Amino acid sequence: MTTWLDIPADHPFGIDTLPYGVFSTGSNPRVGVRVGDLVLDLAAVDPERERVWAAASLNPLLALGRPAWTAARARVVELLTDEAHREVVTPHLVPLARVTMHLPVEVADYVDFYASEHHASNVGQIFRPDNAALPPNWKHLPIGYHGRAGTVVVDGTDVVRPTGQRKGPQDPTPVFGPSVRLDIEAELGYVVGGATQLGSRVSVDEAPDHIFGVVILNDWSARDIQAWEYVPLGPFLGKSFATSISAWVTPLEAFDLARTRLPGQDAVPVLPYLRGDAWGLDIHLEVRLNGHVVATPHNSDMYWSPAQMLAHLTVNGASLRDGDLFGSGTISGPTKGERGSLLELAWGGTEPITLPDGSTRTFLEDGDTVTMTGWAPGPRGARIGLGEVSGTIRPAR
Amino acid sequence: MTTWLDIPADHPFGIDTLPYGVFSTGSNPRVGVRVGDLVLDLAAVDPERERVWAAASLNPLLALGRPAWTAARARVVELLTDEAHREVVTPHLVPLARVTMHLPVEVADYVDFYASEHHASNVGQIFRPDNAALPPNWKHLPIGYHGRAGTVVVDGTDVVRPTGQRKGPQDPTPVFGPSVRLDIEAELGYVVGGATQLGSRVSVDEAPDHIFGVVILNDWSARDIQAWEYVPLGPFLGKSFATSISAWVTPLEAFDLARTRLPGQDAVPVLPYLRGDAWGLDIHLEVRLNGHVVATPHNSDMYWSPAQMLAHLTVNGASLRDGDLFGSGTISGPTKGERGSLLELAWGGTEPITLPDGSTRTFLEDGDTVTMTGWAPGPRGARIGLGEVSGTIRPAR
Repeated sequence: MTTWLDIPADHPFGIDTLPYGVFSTGSNPRVGVRVGDLVLDLAAVDPERERVWAAASLNPLLALGRPAWTAARARVVELLTDEAHREVVTPHLVPLARVTMHLPVEVADYVDFYASEHHASNVGQIFRPDNAALPPNWKHLPIGYHGRAGTVVVDGTDVVRPTGQRKGPQDPTPVFGPSVRLDIEAELGYVVGGATQLGSRVSVDEAPDHIFGVVILNDWSARDIQAWEYVPLGPFLGKSFATSISAWVTPLEAFDLARTRLPGQDAVPVLPYLRGDAWGLDIHLEVRLNGHVVATPHNSDMYWSPAQMLAHLTVNGASLRDGDLFGSGTISGPTKGERGSLLELAWGGTEPITLPDGSTRTFLEDGDTVTMTGWAPGPRGARIGLGEVSGTIRPAR
Repeated sequence: MTTWLDIPADHPFGIDTLPYGVFSTGSNPRVGVRVGDLVLDLAAVDPERERVWAAASLNPLLALGRPAWTAARARVVELLTDEAHREVVTPHLVPLARVTMHLPVEVADYVDFYASEHHASNVGQIFRPDNAALPPNWKHLPIGYHGRAGTVVVDGTDVVRPTGQRKGPQDPTPVFGPSVRLDIEAELGYVVGGATQLGSRVSVDEAPDHIFGVVILNDWSARDIQAWEYVPLGPFLGKSFATSISAWVTPLEAFDLARTRLPGQDAVPVLPYLRGDAWGLDIHLEVRLNGHVVATPHNSDMYWSPAQMLAHLTVNGASLRDGDLFGSGTISGPTKGERGSLLELAWGGTEPITLPDGSTRTFLEDGDTVTMTGWAPGPRGARIGLGEVSGTIRPAR
């Protein structure tokens, strides 16, 4: 596949990637597709789907379901590869630098999983040193919980340091104030479409019909607030102040060559509803703190697959809505440089990391900027890019 | 206040109640107000707010905020009390029996709290007999977690028994199948409006400007699924299959005379952000199983107030959206007959309850119907009714 556009063969947003996002140049947010460093204004060039492309979120597209997603992508590829469309399309290619990007999805329900064995084991050792590293249920089901959909924000949104209660082992009563253990979690987020009815299930094999695409997700976490609140009903205010996702949603089809075998489920067999074609995704993440690479987690290390997460989420009959979003949980690998949170990188605050300016970090300071990028292998040695997600910490109010 | 309508003085849906709901008589769901056993079609009689009343959910009304809510209620009262409007209003009063009720709110985020000391203490004793009945954080913050907004359903919706994993102490590995410990939780739900910005907080004193009204909420719970999954990240599939709310949302103003002093916060002082005018609500619930009253919980026994719950929910800067819903958690009192769940009523399955037909229950059986109703004291000895919420258990698929 080659495009008539002049894009280097090694560009992560070449003709094999084509992520969707919501952009504006003035007051009119609408759907665009990224190619190279340009955004194609789809409503202007694909009248057949004008209603879907003119929307201020991807939700109308998500509602159409898998066959329509595939057809839409094929049409976009045709527009960008067939020389015959060059004249019509060219005026509607806008340089990235001239657009404002918006939250791509009106998030319906947001669920976050806990699918990395390395992460869960590290957190277990740090938070619950007297217990087994993994809870007894961990290898039997992908543990998940609902997060706050209303505070999912797009790449570039500042994050105000949250305030709340914490109680250290030395504190006789809880202390109130800005979090002093503000952290990141490098994750992938899966955007769901093809809504289902209450009482039905989605099997592992059916899951790709409901997973539209992939974003990078930073699940900002206030570890001190979380530690004090989370027993017995789980994380709440330690997470709900903000969750950042990339502006570009890379369609699932772009990852066809990135499918991998899951690394670890042979030892403990899973129940039948979690079996099937449960591929992992060979996606490489890079986490930068103030421009400096602090971690390179690999999604191919994940224990649970996105299809298994979706099958689990719906096995009780819970329905899916267009715009549902589920996160993988922090992606961590076996070595220190592959850990997707500062909690793990600085091991609960005991092993600070040093930045090039000589400063050290255990958790985030005001003014810090965290940026996550990612890519996967594509055809002919090309890289499939994921949209970056970045955020800067602002002082507590 | 007297209405020109012929409604008995002791009717729980008299002129002092006036709950809003979304009804249809054909294919056109719109907002109505209940008075007696009639529904007033508001769009037809209040052209000034036609856009809000013609909507298929209360969300446009919720977006208007407290002053507009008060003005709208005043207008409805005027229409129903001033004889001059009788002729215009009468043709637009539809008998309840002729309408279909719909989910009143497009639920944005759904949060459930755990605000009854009696309930938390009972559950602690049943689920965690080796630990203190209350977790250490319980009297310092209203514990809450996010639930699934997309599976909130309206009164009358059947509930399919959920399927999932459970693992009893005797099971070597988890067992898969329909839940065998399907339960109810009798709660109040608070409907939120007057959306706020990310990074801002709502204080205890400001909370009534964001709490539009009250519903009865049944937080269906599969105890066996919940027990196996909930450590460490909280309830997920044990709750997410369905949450039922009443079709009628009783405005907060209707409960002016039901405000009570909180019963228990003198012993353990709360942090300043949880202080303020934190009234409780003297609302009486009645829980019927197949028509037989099994519990009469009193909301005046609750430890945490709804204003404190909302202040806590936003203290980390989490924004509110119009249509957010938060539940109180199960309402239980000090005596056995005041417990709001079967888990407590039958004490973890060890003390079955007997129904008038001679059958016993520890948890719900297929075909069982659970109905919750409620009322609060109003002016002149009148009762302020809450909309009932009912659901019947259908066999697992």
